[in-house]
Amino acid sequence: MSLQLGELRVPRRILMGPGPTEVNPRVLRAMSLPVLGHLDPAFLEIMNQVTAMLRAVFQTQNELTLAVSGTGTAGMEATLFNLIEPGDEVLVAVKGYFGDRMCQMAERAGAKLTRLDTEWGTVFEPERIGAALKTMAKPKLVAIVHAETSTGALQPIEEIARLAHEAGALFLIDCVTSLGGTPVLIDEWKVDAAYSGTQKCLGSPPGLSPVTFSPRAVEVIRNRKTPPQSWYLDMGLIARYWGGDRVYHHTAPINAIYGCHEALRLALDEGLSVRFARHLRNHHALVAGVEAMGLTLHASANRLPMLNTIRIPTGLDDMRIRGRLLNEFGIEIAGGLGALKGRILRVGIMGYSSNPHNVTLFLAALEHILASEGVKIPRGAALASAHEVYTQAAASVSDHSGK
Amino acid sequence: MSLQLGELRVPRRILMGPGPTEVNPRVLRAMSLPVLGHLDPAFLEIMNQVTAMLRAVFQTQNELTLAVSGTGTAGMEATLFNLIEPGDEVLVAVKGYFGDRMCQMAERAGAKLTRLDTEWGTVFEPERIGAALKTMAKPKLVAIVHAETSTGALQPIEEIARLAHEAGALFLIDCVTSLGGTPVLIDEWKVDAAYSGTQKCLGSPPGLSPVTFSPRAVEVIRNRKTPPQSWYLDMGLIARYWGGDRVYHHTAPINAIYGCHEALRLALDEGLSVRFARHLRNHHALVAGVEAMGLTLHASANRLPMLNTIRIPTGLDDMRIRGRLLNEFGIEIAGGLGALKGRILRVGIMGYSSNPHNVTLFLAALEHILASEGVKIPRGAALASAHEVYTQAAASVSDHSGK
Repeated sequence: MSLQLGELRVPRRILMGPGPTEVNPRVLRAMSLPVLGHLDPAFLEIMNQVTAMLRAVFQTQNELTLAVSGTGTAGMEATLFNLIEPGDEVLVAVKGYFGDRMCQMAERAGAKLTRLDTEWGTVFEPERIGAALKTMAKPKLVAIVHAETSTGALQPIEEIARLAHEAGALFLIDCVTSLGGTPVLIDEWKVDAAYSGTQKCLGSPPGLSPVTFSPRAVEVIRNRKTPPQSWYLDMGLIARYWGGDRVYHHTAPINAIYGCHEALRLALDEGLSVRFARHLRNHHALVAGVEAMGLTLHASANRLPMLNTIRIPTGLDDMRIRGRLLNEFGIEIAGGLGALKGRILRVGIMGYSSNPHNVTLFLAALEHILASEGVKIPRGAALASAHEVYTQAAASVSDHSGK
Repeated sequence: MSLQLGELRVPRRILMGPGPTEVNPRVLRAMSLPVLGHLDPAFLEIMNQVTAMLRAVFQTQNELTLAVSGTGTAGMEATLFNLIEPGDEVLVAVKGYFGDRMCQMAERAGAKLTRLDTEWGTVFEPERIGAALKTMAKPKLVAIVHAETSTGALQPIEEIARLAHEAGALFLIDCVTSLGGTPVLIDEWKVDAAYSGTQKCLGSPPGLSPVTFSPRAVEVIRNRKTPPQSWYLDMGLIARYWGGDRVYHHTAPINAIYGCHEALRLALDEGLSVRFARHLRNHHALVAGVEAMGLTLHASANRLPMLNTIRIPTGLDDMRIRGRLLNEFGIEIAGGLGALKGRILRVGIMGYSSNPHNVTLFLAALEHILASEGVKIPRGAALASAHEVYTQAAASVSDHSGK
């Protein structure tokens, strides 16, 4: 490869995968502000504001709330590694790809793992988890994914939290895809630890993982007998930098935090309930359009509003459909992971990408491609159905102006 | 705290600490390009280019060369955790704060650690390391910091590499502060693994850690008996995403990689030898100015060009000097870490921050502050001495225009 490269250019894309999503130009603008030192009083104040805004979106009073300097997977590792010590009994309820990843990490942390599985696309009945907990001697931690990005299913949380606590365990959720797009009520649900990512419904580029720990989880971390196996993700050390002491741990990713700050500011300015309603409205429009084409969604109930899994009609090739969407229409969506590879399309409408332009464009493009691939489609029905949702909500105007 | 926040504002700062440094506006502009998907063919091509450019700055042909999705500390952890298995004998030669950090991580990885220490500010004689290796049964890894940011000393590398290999060990260096500012010759020195950070002499914001592994190190990783203790930093998994397979591992920090791409492009466009000469010239000017004020540098020999440690005159308070520099002149420098806390000032002239404007401004401000604190200073001597360095190099004009 010649290294005489020109200035970076990126193609125009509509991002409707499982993240990253498009971001508001204001967020990009914030990220291009000059770098500050990671111990500059002005930057420390920005961190304080990020913490306060993260508490608001997590709907928590948890003191230990901050953005880990890595992507959502780093947040998964930070929460698991800080709460688990070798030999601890951990229950992970798996209903998709990311639950499986939690198991792999818990095992690397030396956990004595109890793994429950349910069909991908469904959610857990709390009773199953309650029953499994009864078979464990001293469960330390129960972990589950709230919004499983690989299947499109949303797990009800509150009852599982109650059962975990009844068994004396901490309760951890992955809310990478849900935070900022659907209610995540850390305090009300009594969740002890949670991690997310900035690149989904929060509407900032990837690179940071918001995390929050309850006072009870903090107590468990403080009383560890062994240090967490990661130094980079050691919450005891990181808390001293994000908290009052400001002890140097690592150089924070300054500009990513600027972007996160602006994205959080925009989310709170929009209002969480308005934002959740927007995600739901665009989801309803997308589903109406998809079903009007004669397609079905994979998640039958408890559907995520921000990530839609569409079954691929028999005989059609996943890669070909996605390739045509990308190359002919500049629209990125994703295929299935693991057990669902080749069987579903995953269509994200998250954060700034959750808007009627994207929904309309996607439906029009998909209809064109399916029809040209020989699928019998009632032409125009998708857009008509989606448009009706918007008209009924009388909301498309405010959505279009919603910058 | 009220959450009715205005748009983010940052104060104007001259960054002359140990990093982050100021970055070229072109880098900030690249970071504000629209987000692409982490599996978009256009983004994968950007990753290929980043890899090729990283190989050029590391001066290596190593296939496994990429940017870890975390700051330099994540790179430290990624290299140590992937090369060490529990029970492995590891030698860490410590001559400052970051060598000590390596020891902490090696111990978390279960290493049987042999730690050598030398006075902070000095470097190791290779013979000491050779002798220590003879006391070990089967050394697996020797690790040392190339440019110790906490002391300002530059460790000669080549002979230690030879001794490590002679003993059958892999050889790892931390080149967080050196890469892009002074020669780092991975292949010529026969270094098996190295990590760096983007926010020092490479001139990009913090958030990524360039790493490189020799074929021999890759072989060791492939033949591990146990998985690395981190899943997020598991090079076997990450290599499948950065390499040809493009298997999803985590969502790459897209915009940080844009910034890194542009910073690398600018570094190679400047030319590495020209860039090293620039760092050296600004270092010589700074040292001439500092010594003309009657101050002394802590590192007596093997001085880093990009990070200068100045002894604080007796009776003066570290925090007060740095506070005045920041508040009265908008200049950020750093104080000492660990054993050197309160005893030295650390002045970075790295990457985009390495320019005559910054050197001149710093010398003028420091002279003013020291004089007003009652230190007897020959007024004007610092600037005259620094200016003479620039005049002799006949280079200040090209430096000033060097955007």
